[in-house]
Amino acid sequence: MQKEFTDISKIGEFGLINKISETVKLYHLDSEKGIGDDAAILNFNGSKILVTTDMLTEGVHFDLTYMPLQHLGYKAVAINLSDIYAMNGEPRQITVSIGLSSRFSVEHIEEIYKGINKACEFYKVDIVGGDTVSSLSGLIISITAIGVANEKEITMRSGAQENDLICVSGDLGAAYLGLKLLAREKAAFEVAPHQQPQFDGYEYLIERQLKPEPRRDICNKLREAGIIPTSMIDISDGLSSELMHLAQNSEVGCRIYDEKLPIHQQSIRLCEEFNIDPSIPALNGGEDYELLFTIKQSDYEHIAKIENVSVIGHITSYKGLCEIVFRDGTAVPLTAHGWNAFVNDDETDM
Amino acid sequence: MQKEFTDISKIGEFGLINKISETVKLYHLDSEKGIGDDAAILNFNGSKILVTTDMLTEGVHFDLTYMPLQHLGYKAVAINLSDIYAMNGEPRQITVSIGLSSRFSVEHIEEIYKGINKACEFYKVDIVGGDTVSSLSGLIISITAIGVANEKEITMRSGAQENDLICVSGDLGAAYLGLKLLAREKAAFEVAPHQQPQFDGYEYLIERQLKPEPRRDICNKLREAGIIPTSMIDISDGLSSELMHLAQNSEVGCRIYDEKLPIHQQSIRLCEEFNIDPSIPALNGGEDYELLFTIKQSDYEHIAKIENVSVIGHITSYKGLCEIVFRDGTAVPLTAHGWNAFVNDDETDM
Repeated sequence: MQKEFTDISKIGEFGLINKISETVKLYHLDSEKGIGDDAAILNFNGSKILVTTDMLTEGVHFDLTYMPLQHLGYKAVAINLSDIYAMNGEPRQITVSIGLSSRFSVEHIEEIYKGINKACEFYKVDIVGGDTVSSLSGLIISITAIGVANEKEITMRSGAQENDLICVSGDLGAAYLGLKLLAREKAAFEVAPHQQPQFDGYEYLIERQLKPEPRRDICNKLREAGIIPTSMIDISDGLSSELMHLAQNSEVGCRIYDEKLPIHQQSIRLCEEFNIDPSIPALNGGEDYELLFTIKQSDYEHIAKIENVSVIGHITSYKGLCEIVFRDGTAVPLTAHGWNAFVNDDETDM
Repeated sequence: MQKEFTDISKIGEFGLINKISETVKLYHLDSEKGIGDDAAILNFNGSKILVTTDMLTEGVHFDLTYMPLQHLGYKAVAINLSDIYAMNGEPRQITVSIGLSSRFSVEHIEEIYKGINKACEFYKVDIVGGDTVSSLSGLIISITAIGVANEKEITMRSGAQENDLICVSGDLGAAYLGLKLLAREKAAFEVAPHQQPQFDGYEYLIERQLKPEPRRDICNKLREAGIIPTSMIDISDGLSSELMHLAQNSEVGCRIYDEKLPIHQQSIRLCEEFNIDPSIPALNGGEDYELLFTIKQSDYEHIAKIENVSVIGHITSYKGLCEIVFRDGTAVPLTAHGWNAFVNDDETDM
């Protein structure tokens, strides 16, 4: 084939998505929005259908030494639903494809499906199809989620406007710190197999890593409060990266404040133990699956009444410039690492 | 976890699908038909949406020593579209998820996408989303296809009735024989690397294996002739297996005639070389992606005018009994091996 090969890590995940997108043509008017948002928007006779997909592979996205199969099934559904909620839609159906090597048995698949079914029951989503195949090594889960949305409520990455307030749900960085903690205890276990893992006081971080929940509750609260975000995205790759997506797609800039970043007390405590600044995992840690969204300033009063939402900054007219302002007043441009799955995940995001 | 483990090959692919289906609940009325046909049927405000998904893994579904990446991309799309055509629908969108290990470069992904884009252009299908991730070993492609269908034209596996004629498009067994041939030449190459592979006179078989085409043309011809099949399924796992699915879902029996099986002359010639009965790959070889369907007897005149369709038998009232009648008049019950991906693919289907 070709004689020169480019390592994927050289262009990164986002470079690769851009390269692929460039070659893609759309033939149908019903494909209203293709690649480039949390989910595609299809329009079938006026019904707006959302479609998104995510693939998880063993050893890259999960480690079965500390990820129970039920949790893995649950998480694989959750992260797909998160993309539907990020469009302000309601997930309805999923398809589930699983590839597994011969070390997995029928009972293992049943465990995975217990988790999948649990998520489906909780979020009222139907499994309507799938494929279960063998793989030469490891476990792969690929899920596609389909949702519906009200045309007037759909939120894309592209609607943010100057002076809009930047909001984020829940807290940031905990899922990444949970992963760090699990990795530390795995390493300790390998040295001293009889010692119990030390998770006391960090249960929240572990849960954030192993059982993330998409923020249906926040979408519902926004709806009840009559707020339609001007733009929205879910935080799967870290706040910095997602903010830059929003800014780029909306052709605006943004300014956030370090002191406003919502960080859980357990995150702060573990950061002290690890001797790192808690803002770093909050900005660049992945897998929080919180919602990042912008609202009109006039909605401030309403948003202030919603629990678990923090206003962390505002949109500016400085196209493409995303800045974080520290307590001492200095402003620093954000850099997006993304969750670059093509280099060592564990090390690149911080 | 559990203490006793059941090997997946013990219950087989279909046993596994049944086990999974038993645990699945549907919460939404818009999920009109879930697991159990070539594609799910969703109903959004009267628009019938079809959804299907397939995962291909390296070393199980394809061997990159003889499968060029472009062909792999094309085939991964084709087999998904085949499921949409088998519902008598029209494919519109796909999502593409690819997992790849570090031995693959940007150029390799571009090659895969060239094939994917070629299939999308030919069948007028839009890529609206996807995911590209790293895997610890090998290449995985998981595609989900979305299609639309006219309510009155949708064909499921469950509509066959007594005395309906059983029809099949194209010819059978060639894709499997192509695979056999490629495997033979790969083995020969390993022994004598300077020898060129011997495909002369078998080009059709190779093409059937490497570049299958879903039968959009047959769906169009049926539509033009005013024929709506009473049931339909695509032949991915071999005629026997698919016939038994049709019979089971329609609660009928079927009787086909050995002498009516459409077999390409190159298939017959290679079977002579391999010293096997050509009916065996025709019945049990996988990956033909032809359409198997039933029509009312009154449509016989119309179907006879359509090229590339063979009437191979008829539906009987003997629920669950599928028989093949040989030239000497003996009738033998068919057995379905399916395309059991959990045991050695290469050997189980014949």
